[in-house]
Amino acid sequence: MVITVLSGGVGAARLIRALSLVMDPSEITGVVNVGDDLVMHGLTICPDLDTISYTLAGLNNDELGWGLAGETWRVMDELRQLGGAAWFALGDRDLATHLYRTQRINEGATKTQVTRELCEHWGVRTRLLPVTNDTIATIFDTEIGRLSFQEYFVAHHHDVVVHSIMVQGAVASTATDEVMAALESCSRIIIAPSNPLISIDPILQVRGVRELLASRREDVVAVSPIIDGSALKGPADRLMRELGYVATAIGVADFYQGLIGTMVIDETDRKLAGEIESRGIKVHVTTTIMANRDDARRLAGVVLA
Amino acid sequence: MVITVLSGGVGAARLIRALSLVMDPSEITGVVNVGDDLVMHGLTICPDLDTISYTLAGLNNDELGWGLAGETWRVMDELRQLGGAAWFALGDRDLATHLYRTQRINEGATKTQVTRELCEHWGVRTRLLPVTNDTIATIFDTEIGRLSFQEYFVAHHHDVVVHSIMVQGAVASTATDEVMAALESCSRIIIAPSNPLISIDPILQVRGVRELLASRREDVVAVSPIIDGSALKGPADRLMRELGYVATAIGVADFYQGLIGTMVIDETDRKLAGEIESRGIKVHVTTTIMANRDDARRLAGVVLA
Repeated sequence: MVITVLSGGVGAARLIRALSLVMDPSEITGVVNVGDDLVMHGLTICPDLDTISYTLAGLNNDELGWGLAGETWRVMDELRQLGGAAWFALGDRDLATHLYRTQRINEGATKTQVTRELCEHWGVRTRLLPVTNDTIATIFDTEIGRLSFQEYFVAHHHDVVVHSIMVQGAVASTATDEVMAALESCSRIIIAPSNPLISIDPILQVRGVRELLASRREDVVAVSPIIDGSALKGPADRLMRELGYVATAIGVADFYQGLIGTMVIDETDRKLAGEIESRGIKVHVTTTIMANRDDARRLAGVVLA
Repeated sequence: MVITVLSGGVGAARLIRALSLVMDPSEITGVVNVGDDLVMHGLTICPDLDTISYTLAGLNNDELGWGLAGETWRVMDELRQLGGAAWFALGDRDLATHLYRTQRINEGATKTQVTRELCEHWGVRTRLLPVTNDTIATIFDTEIGRLSFQEYFVAHHHDVVVHSIMVQGAVASTATDEVMAALESCSRIIIAPSNPLISIDPILQVRGVRELLASRREDVVAVSPIIDGSALKGPADRLMRELGYVATAIGVADFYQGLIGTMVIDETDRKLAGEIESRGIKVHVTTTIMANRDDARRLAGVVLA
C-alpha cells in the first residue's frame, strides 16, 4: 500500500516511524508543513522537515525531544556572548544542516531537492516533501501583538493568548507537483497526530491540498492529537479552546469535517466515538500513545487497516 | 596624532597592532577592504574586518595565521560529511561572528554598525570602518576562468595564473561618510603593507577614495609589502609580476604613484631607495618585518615620524 502522511513535526515523525515498522518505508510519502520555517542569521531553517528526517534517520535527540543526538552548542554559546539572538537554539550539528540547505538554495535548488539530498545522505527511505516551495509563514495575533511561529512557540513558550492564526503567503502558494501526485496516487492519506491548527492547517491552506483531500475524503484517516482533552505535547488543546473548538477529539473531528472519512482516537476517548460518527466520520479506537514498539505497531496497523 | 590606515587583512592587522604600541589606539582608524567579503551558506563574511578585529582583540589564532584562538570545527566537520561546500573553513567560534553579522544586516544594520558593535564587544579601541556599505567584489580572470576572491585565494591557494583583476560594483559604490571624514581629517594616511593589487586597490576604487588620497598625497605613507622581491605572505609578488609590475618595492611605488608622498621600505631594499626617490617619493628605510615587539615599535615610530 502506498500512503501519504500530512505531517507536522514530532507527532508525525513518530507516526511515520511507527508505519515504517509494518510497511516498506519507501512506500510512505510525508507531505510536510513549512509554515514554521524561518530565516534566522541568514539561514533557512525547516524545523518540521528536520525533526522528521532526524527521527527517521535515528539521529534524533531523545533527551531534548528535538534536534540531533550528541549535539554540542559551541556556536550558540559564542553567539550569546556576542549579544546575538540566541533564543532559537541551534546546535553545532544542526547548524551544518541549515548551512547546507541555505547554500544549496542560494545555488538555485528548491527545498524539495535539498530535502531529498539530505534524506539520501542520512539513508532515510521515506520520501519527505515540503508541501510547497513557495514561502508561507504561520503568524499569530496574540494578546501581546503579532508573533511569528517561532516567536510564539519558542521565545514565548506558546504561553500567550492567541486571538487568531493566519498563514501568510498561502493564498499565492502552490503545492509542488510531487505533492499533488503523491496525494492523488496514494491509496490512503493519513493526517498525522500533529497540531491541527498550526501544523496541519498550513498544509491544507496551500492551494490545491484542501480540495484534493475533500475529493478523496473516504481515503483520508486522521489520528487525533488530543487524548482525554490534552495534547501529548505542545499547545494544541489550549489553542483549540482559544480559537473556539472543543479541546477533545470532537473538536479535531469538527476541524477536519468534510476532509476525512475516518478518525483514529485513543481508548480513553471511546465515549466520544458516537458523537464523531454522528458527523459521518468512521471511528477506530486504539491506544494512540506510542509508549513502545508494540504500541507503535498496533497504531500503525489500525491506521492502515 | 590622528591617523587613518588603509587596510587589508593580516599585514594591516599587524601594522595597526604595532601602531597601538606607540600611540593611543582610539586615535587610529582602519579603513578596511571589503572586496573579498562573501556570502557563503547565506552568511555575510568579512575576512579582512574579522582578521583585524580578532588580532586587535588578542583573539587571533597564531598557529593557523587566521581565525580565532581555541577554535573548534564541529559545524564544518558535519557539513563536510553532508557533502556541503567545506573548502572555506569556518570555525565554530568564527561562525558566531558571521551569524551575528548576518542577522543584524537582515535587521537593517549596515556593515559599519555591525563592525562597531563587534569591536565594542571585544574591547577593540581602534575604530574599524568598512570602506563602503555597498557590495563590491574582487574578481580574477585566470587561466582556468573567472574566480571570486575566495575561490582564487582559498580554493585554488592563489596558485593559478591571473590575467586581470576587477572590482565588481566599485564604480557604483561610495565610501561611507565616516570613511571620508576619517580620510579628510586625519593628520596622516598610512597604506598598510597589504597586497596592493587585491587588498588596497579595491579600497582605492571605491568612489571618492583615490581622489582624496591624491589631494593629500604629501600626508600619505605606504609601507611596502614586498621585501627583497617577495611578499611575506600571500601572492603579492607573483601577482605583481603577472600584471606587469616589477615585483619589488619599486613596483609598489609605481602602483601607488601620485597617491603617496612617502614610502617605508625594508633594510634589505635600501639599494632601491634612490630609484623610488627619483619618482618624487620620499623613502624611509627600516626593518619592516615585525618579528618581535621591538621591531613593531621601531616600524610604528618610522611610519609616524
